[in-house]
Amino acid sequence: MAELEFTPTPEQYAWTFGGVAPVREVEPGTVMRLWCDDAFGGRIRAVTDLPSAVLDARFLNPQTGPFAVRGAEPGDTLVLHLVDLTPAREWGASTLVPFFGGLTGTDRTALLDDPLPELTWIYELDRARNTVTFVARRSDFSVDLPVAPMLGTVGVAPAAREVRSSLTPDAFGGNMDTPEMRAGVTCYLPVNEPGALFSVGDGHYRQGEGESCGTAVEGAMDVTLIVELVKADVAPAPLWPRIESDEELITVGSSRPLEDAWRIGQKEMISWLGTLHGLDRLDAYELLTQISLAPLANVVDTNYSAVTKVSKAFLPRVDPYGGLHADLRARAASL
Amino acid sequence: MAELEFTPTPEQYAWTFGGVAPVREVEPGTVMRLWCDDAFGGRIRAVTDLPSAVLDARFLNPQTGPFAVRGAEPGDTLVLHLVDLTPAREWGASTLVPFFGGLTGTDRTALLDDPLPELTWIYELDRARNTVTFVARRSDFSVDLPVAPMLGTVGVAPAAREVRSSLTPDAFGGNMDTPEMRAGVTCYLPVNEPGALFSVGDGHYRQGEGESCGTAVEGAMDVTLIVELVKADVAPAPLWPRIESDEELITVGSSRPLEDAWRIGQKEMISWLGTLHGLDRLDAYELLTQISLAPLANVVDTNYSAVTKVSKAFLPRVDPYGGLHADLRARAASL
Amino acid sequence: MAELEFTPTPEQYAWTFGGVAPVREVEPGTVMRLWCDDAFGGRIRAVTDLPSAVLDARFLNPQTGPFAVRGAEPGDTLVLHLVDLTPAREWGASTLVPFFGGLTGTDRTALLDDPLPELTWIYELDRARNTVTFVARRSDFSVDLPVAPMLGTVGVAPAAREVRSSLTPDAFGGNMDTPEMRAGVTCYLPVNEPGALFSVGDGHYRQGEGESCGTAVEGAMDVTLIVELVKADVAPAPLWPRIESDEELITVGSSRPLEDAWRIGQKEMISWLGTLHGLDRLDAYELLTQISLAPLANVVDTNYSAVTKVSKAFLPRVDPYGGLHADLRARAASL
Amino acid sequence: MAELEFTPTPEQYAWTFGGVAPVREVEPGTVMRLWCDDAFGGRIRAVTDLPSAVLDARFLNPQTGPFAVRGAEPGDTLVLHLVDLTPAREWGASTLVPFFGGLTGTDRTALLDDPLPELTWIYELDRARNTVTFVARRSDFSVDLPVAPMLGTVGVAPAAREVRSSLTPDAFGGNMDTPEMRAGVTCYLPVNEPGALFSVGDGHYRQGEGESCGTAVEGAMDVTLIVELVKADVAPAPLWPRIESDEELITVGSSRPLEDAWRIGQKEMISWLGTLHGLDRLDAYELLTQISLAPLANVVDTNYSAVTKVSKAFLPRVDPYGGLHADLRARAASL
Repeated sequence: MAELEFTPTPEQYAWTFGGVAPVREVEPGTVMRLWCDDAFGGRIRAVTDLPSAVLDARFLNPQTGPFAVRGAEPGDTLVLHLVDLTPAREWGASTLVPFFGGLTGTDRTALLDDPLPELTWIYELDRARNTVTFVARRSDFSVDLPVAPMLGTVGVAPAAREVRSSLTPDAFGGNMDTPEMRAGVTCYLPVNEPGALFSVGDGHYRQGEGESCGTAVEGAMDVTLIVELVKADVAPAPLWPRIESDEELITVGSSRPLEDAWRIGQKEMISWLGTLHGLDRLDAYELLTQISLAPLANVVDTNYSAVTKVSKAFLPRVDPYGGLHADLRARAASL
Repeated sequence: MAELEFTPTPEQYAWTFGGVAPVREVEPGTVMRLWCDDAFGGRIRAVTDLPSAVLDARFLNPQTGPFAVRGAEPGDTLVLHLVDLTPAREWGASTLVPFFGGLTGTDRTALLDDPLPELTWIYELDRARNTVTFVARRSDFSVDLPVAPMLGTVGVAPAAREVRSSLTPDAFGGNMDTPEMRAGVTCYLPVNEPGALFSVGDGHYRQGEGESCGTAVEGAMDVTLIVELVKADVAPAPLWPRIESDEELITVGSSRPLEDAWRIGQKEMISWLGTLHGLDRLDAYELLTQISLAPLANVVDTNYSAVTKVSKAFLPRVDPYGGLHADLRARAASL
Repeated sequence: MAELEFTPTPEQYAWTFGGVAPVREVEPGTVMRLWCDDAFGGRIRAVTDLPSAVLDARFLNPQTGPFAVRGAEPGDTLVLHLVDLTPAREWGASTLVPFFGGLTGTDRTALLDDPLPELTWIYELDRARNTVTFVARRSDFSVDLPVAPMLGTVGVAPAAREVRSSLTPDAFGGNMDTPEMRAGVTCYLPVNEPGALFSVGDGHYRQGEGESCGTAVEGAMDVTLIVELVKADVAPAPLWPRIESDEELITVGSSRPLEDAWRIGQKEMISWLGTLHGLDRLDAYELLTQISLAPLANVVDTNYSAVTKVSKAFLPRVDPYGGLHADLRARAASL
Repeated sequence: MAELEFTPTPEQYAWTFGGVAPVREVEPGTVMRLWCDDAFGGRIRAVTDLPSAVLDARFLNPQTGPFAVRGAEPGDTLVLHLVDLTPAREWGASTLVPFFGGLTGTDRTALLDDPLPELTWIYELDRARNTVTFVARRSDFSVDLPVAPMLGTVGVAPAAREVRSSLTPDAFGGNMDTPEMRAGVTCYLPVNEPGALFSVGDGHYRQGEGESCGTAVEGAMDVTLIVELVKADVAPAPLWPRIESDEELITVGSSRPLEDAWRIGQKEMISWLGTLHGLDRLDAYELLTQISLAPLANVVDTNYSAVTKVSKAFLPRVDPYGGLHADLRARAASL
């Protein structure tokens, strides 16, 4: 297998999906070993680092990429199999950014309240025990939490000539902030521009569903992934991001209000189940009603993201995309 | 332990939370063995039974109750421990009710589209294998699904003199439609009216998160529960429903849009964590961000309901409400 | 014409729609001369009166009523023609209630922010100049504003056995808080319970669209109205409140999120235009697109309310409800 | 005054805000005489022209521009005074685009319903009577409506390196679709990129508030405007679009859900009133509550837009931006 190793210099960071020239071109089948900075560009390092002092709103969520995939054309499906996510620093950081987060006024939910106080938490990583430690700032309390690495952002260049901030999730993927984006899964994204122009970033050492305060345990990440391509004549591109794990089929919708994000993911899953099992949309709707898991992803970003998840165990054996996920798992195991 | 057995006659069904005289008064500590009809009042029995023909909108979601709890006063906390939920019929039913459901226009999301076709599914129960069977209506497809009994509605009389339809979830509980309301959990509800006046109903043999099409595998249920009371001077009443299982702390918010339902549950959990662990609200907000699970409950009812769930394993050992849940589990085991 | 004069004692105030015995029964055609207290029950009288000190959440928005209308049956249309609204005190009051209002966190949009400061404004009424005076609290600024009396609440007993707080607007009318509810208009409401059981209250000496901070220039009001009834066999009841003025047809939808409130009012207007002009729903949708006015009513109550308004000047001459509005205007002129 | 006349060739149409090289550079003070094609690019010309047959989703809402304004830097305020809007064709068109519009499922409010039927209306323009004629498609009904020309889109290049479809309204202006954007008003927009890079388009011969079905009476437009610039050191740029007419101050917020669009506009107006009249934000909040008009703009686009409007008659005489609007009116009158 072809391999590519890439660690961007800060000048190479991308801050958008679309609108940036590719840093590299890769062949489908390439194993990529990437390094991603954290969402803060590494600027939050101590509890004394406050967002208003050290962050610049124009430089958040740096992306590693974009990568052009040779042969990818609009209508194709970009396939990214996450082989491994390993924390690349010995600590993660989380902070309350003024007018950002799920339980405070924002630039959109525009209120007259003052911002919540700025407060930063640093989570020390214990690689041996595979934990990060939450230490309360305003009382004497701490607790170790399991590391559960994920990528907040995985996305391609948007459709309709748009260029979107790396803080945005939408049909092109992007800043979905779902814990489902973990090692071992395969992500399917629609190709909108020649080369797909995908990037990854926003490593989280762990995150709850919803990403309530707006920032997970943000940390730089070493990412190993395999890129593949499904041509349009083999299978139509999904309308919205799909994820497959050994156990589950997953779709992610992103919009506002939150019910619309959920609706999008549900409809995409109904479409997927229809294709896989020859189900009429109303039968798929009914079946989904009884088996869907619906964990939230984020309720803080420019679009909210909601996950629809179905256990393969509830369904007859099928192999989406011709068994590509199993094949990628095998390839990953051989690395 | 005092025991009460009660199966309502159809004339005894309650159709609201509040506004109805109690069918029985019980002492705290009573073991209650109840029967609940399904949400359709048993009128959907075959795939040929269509909602517009057999249902009457005034008679949906019959409640078993209300029960007055002796000594319950506004400000107290009503405690219902679900000992057992057992399907009371050999089949469950689900149907597409015109202008109802998450992926169609409704009386609120008022659109000009015609209603989706009416279609009914009957799920045969196999008690030996503990499954219900989904049988597609428009193709040759069927699949067995595990039975996972839950109660769609558990609620008390509302505050502010209101009387609400049994189809509504809100701060008083009600039609939350969350799969978390299963045997083995303890539910804590605020008492708004003397006697609390609680009722239960809307048995589901299983349901996905979100209850997409609007109706789960609806089925009559035999319910065993233990009722308890926490007086206001021992602990303040929760603002919104709380649920405790052996493994998890759970809150449920209900409102529209869906992000507000989520916010309510998150804030209630922040308050709960603050009380249990002496955490400042901002520390609790941060911790919740990293450990919250956020499965949806329903995106179809008059209010949407969203769950916030925290694993006890992530937290130092504490005993909410003085260890009442463990005590109720022990009592249930002795039945 | 029969006449009824009624000023409730505080013990006669109603705090809900539904759930209360009528204070009087009236014949259709009766001229009613009523007095309504303000939403605070007159407790905010000086800028030193703060909500947390003088208000009790259980006693807000007192209603004058309910009145039973002889012969009114479910399916009929209750007709209330507002003849005159005259301020009944020499001042109005507005105040910032903690966790209430459109630009702050609330019990539903549950945030972690502290409440905004409590602040009260008193508006002196100048009857000669027909103005109320805004006096800034935190700078030296004042301005006279035209008096524009309206009723925040006009409603009947809800459907489906519900009892709703007088703070709630919904299909039964209630706390819609629209400036369109002014003298000279005719309001059409669906009858859900025998006698209709309507009440009025929540006088505003003036209010902007949206009622941003949550409280208008709240003031006690002398209300003169004529009650009428349209039986179900003459015309079907509207699904949602309708208002007719000399110049306009108006519908009011109430729900959350705000787009659903708007959708409800739009669909009700499409239905109304269809009936009046024999228009197919798609033609009415198109026509409405080009002529609808869409001023907001409230974005602060338990449901938000949005108005759809159509100028009669844009349409061929028709007489809704058999010319009842013109007839009532004539009757009012003769008083 | 410098003058520029510009009619784009179809190859010069811009389909985005940002991401396109300017077609011309202009000095502040320039009088611009522009021609804009309609949102359909002129492809809907007869009732037999259906969207699915004649439209291409990649080519909707062509913009005339972008124009670079010499000297405009981020932080400045771009000022566009609309001198004249005159229909440039003898007919306007409106149509039901599948899965688009306020009262049907869309790509975001993702439902399982089939699309509404496609239907097109052509409105003949009568210049002498200044009317367009609505002709029902499914019954024998027609009505003349006053021409009320407006521009659906007026926008600059977005902030944060983004490029947005010309179908999107946001802080940069864009596809706000408000009837307030009519001849005689002055629009103030934040400059995000050097040169501002503004464009205009999407002429409507008339439109109701909300643009219910998604398309107004769409028509090509001759636009005369004067461009001006307020440097950052003279006045800070607004956060969101502002509009000034002889009688009113107006702000426009765009987001989802609709209440957030309204909140944005309200907060921007509170900020504006604070600057103009030295009002504390809570005093401005209170005053706005009593005087705000809140007509909707659109409830159909990728963001919904809501207007906040205040009559100057209610406020002490002030001259926003140093009396620039009055000055521009005078300049326009001299053309």
